Amino acid sequence: MAGVVEFEKFPSGTLKVEKGFNLADLDPDSTPGYTGNKADGEALLSDLDGKLAELQEQLFAGSKFGGTKRVLLILQGMDTAGKGGIVKHVLGTMDPQGVQFKSFKAPTPEEKAYDFLWRIEKEVPAAGMMGVFDRSHYEDVLIHRVHGWADPKEIERRYAAINEFEARQTAVGTAVIKVMLNISNEEQKERLLARLDKPEKHWKYNTGDLKERAFWGDYMAAYQAVFTATNTEHAPWYVVPANKKWYARIAVQQLLLEALMSLKLEWPKAEFDVEAERRLAERS
Amino acid sequence: MAGVVEFEKFPSGTLKVEKGFNLADLDPDSTPGYTGNKADGEALLSDLDGKLAELQEQLFAGSKFGGTKRVLLILQGMDTAGKGGIVKHVLGTMDPQGVQFKSFKAPTPEEKAYDFLWRIEKEVPAAGMMGVFDRSHYEDVLIHRVHGWADPKEIERRYAAINEFEARQTAVGTAVIKVMLNISNEEQKERLLARLDKPEKHWKYNTGDLKERAFWGDYMAAYQAVFTATNTEHAPWYVVPANKKWYARIAVQQLLLEALMSLKLEWPKAEFDVEAERRLAERS
Repeated sequence: MAGVVEFEKFPSGTLKVEKGFNLADLDPDSTPGYTGNKADGEALLSDLDGKLAELQEQLFAGSKFGGTKRVLLILQGMDTAGKGGIVKHVLGTMDPQGVQFKSFKAPTPEEKAYDFLWRIEKEVPAAGMMGVFDRSHYEDVLIHRVHGWADPKEIERRYAAINEFEARQTAVGTAVIKVMLNISNEEQKERLLARLDKPEKHWKYNTGDLKERAFWGDYMAAYQAVFTATNTEHAPWYVVPANKKWYARIAVQQLLLEALMSLKLEWPKAEFDVEAERRLAERS
Repeated sequence: MAGVVEFEKFPSGTLKVEKGFNLADLDPDSTPGYTGNKADGEALLSDLDGKLAELQEQLFAGSKFGGTKRVLLILQGMDTAGKGGIVKHVLGTMDPQGVQFKSFKAPTPEEKAYDFLWRIEKEVPAAGMMGVFDRSHYEDVLIHRVHGWADPKEIERRYAAINEFEARQTAVGTAVIKVMLNISNEEQKERLLARLDKPEKHWKYNTGDLKERAFWGDYMAAYQAVFTATNTEHAPWYVVPANKKWYARIAVQQLLLEALMSLKLEWPKAEFDVEAERRLAERS
């Protein structure tokens, strides 16, 4: 990778939520661990595409031979934080047959008739898969807390249920990576205005977004509470500064690369006699 | 697109199954409608990526405002025909949140307890989605015919059921594109041997593939029967010469582009007062 500016310090270390973490202390404009500029970041993203795709194929291949490893990337963030861009530009380079993507919208009446984890359980990644949640069960302790749709006792019950649920995923071989894309209040305003400026972006604009925006402080408090209650050893949170889209993308790409590399993946060994098969194929 | 070699004749015309069609007459090595070489084809594929992604985004956006249009690409072919490569290299450039991909394997005991279309119905694309089937309900009239798992009367029932099923999809706004990737017997042998040569490809090798390969002639007859019975105006078949992977990819890309362009997609018009929202956003 001559000429490509790499991370000096890995995002898994610099962006991980630790004890005493305070969301308000973070600068959404910053680029922790990375000294390059936008062009450098874009070059790095494209340079590591192939490596990421190869690791994902190994993950997928392993499951065909009994491997149970899998990955679940949970993306959270305020409206316009760039979740869709991460999906498109970081995950989009992987083989679609190994990616299990789910965007969680407001629950349907049927979904509301069950516990909040009912619809989530159905979408967890199978062995070998790269699961991606665009929003998740965390909405049930974020927007629900902000608008008081669940009382504090119920929110506490949900935190505990989330921790048990996520621990169960890791117990069967899932690397759980939770990412909050951290944009500033001012950056959100600019992005909403930018959507209004372009007719081809109007479909992404929701008049409800401004309504939620008015609760910004409450959302930040709800995120802080989430980090305190659900940042576990098996399923840690990473807060990714996201005012610079290019940085958020390389940071999440690195988190995925590190998670995949930590799984120590290998190409499955052939369970058949390669030479015998070759002779049969040649005669076929 | 200066310098890029485009199709002289569109695949929708040259590769479409017509009355009197005979699979045996086709040359899997040919590149109908295209005079360029491999490098030209690869450049074309990459050149049209952006256009395809834009149309797919318009399709997706439309569904957020009541649009019912969607696409279903059905990929069939013998083992090693390149279905996975199409998914990765042609569909892989689209935004994952707009792609509904399903790979149909041998049916589970539960699936076998239902009509063959039961598991298919659950996977058809929702409005705005680009659906992709890697294998499909056609296996139920291909491998089932070849091995006699269904008698001729049942196969006839399935053809009729398939035609009704697909007509119902098009009636609700689905553009159905059925593609058979046509490789030669000799090319399959080479690809199987190539998989045996590379340890990182062993996971893709299935000792059952050689067993099915022995039924090559029966499969070709089953495909020919499928084209005769299920090539309808609303859901036509395209047979894509696939010995040259690069050609198969640009041909399928063109078929998708043509299908999407025929839907006459537009960016949805804003259903809100853009100026009023802008003033609100600026004050927020």
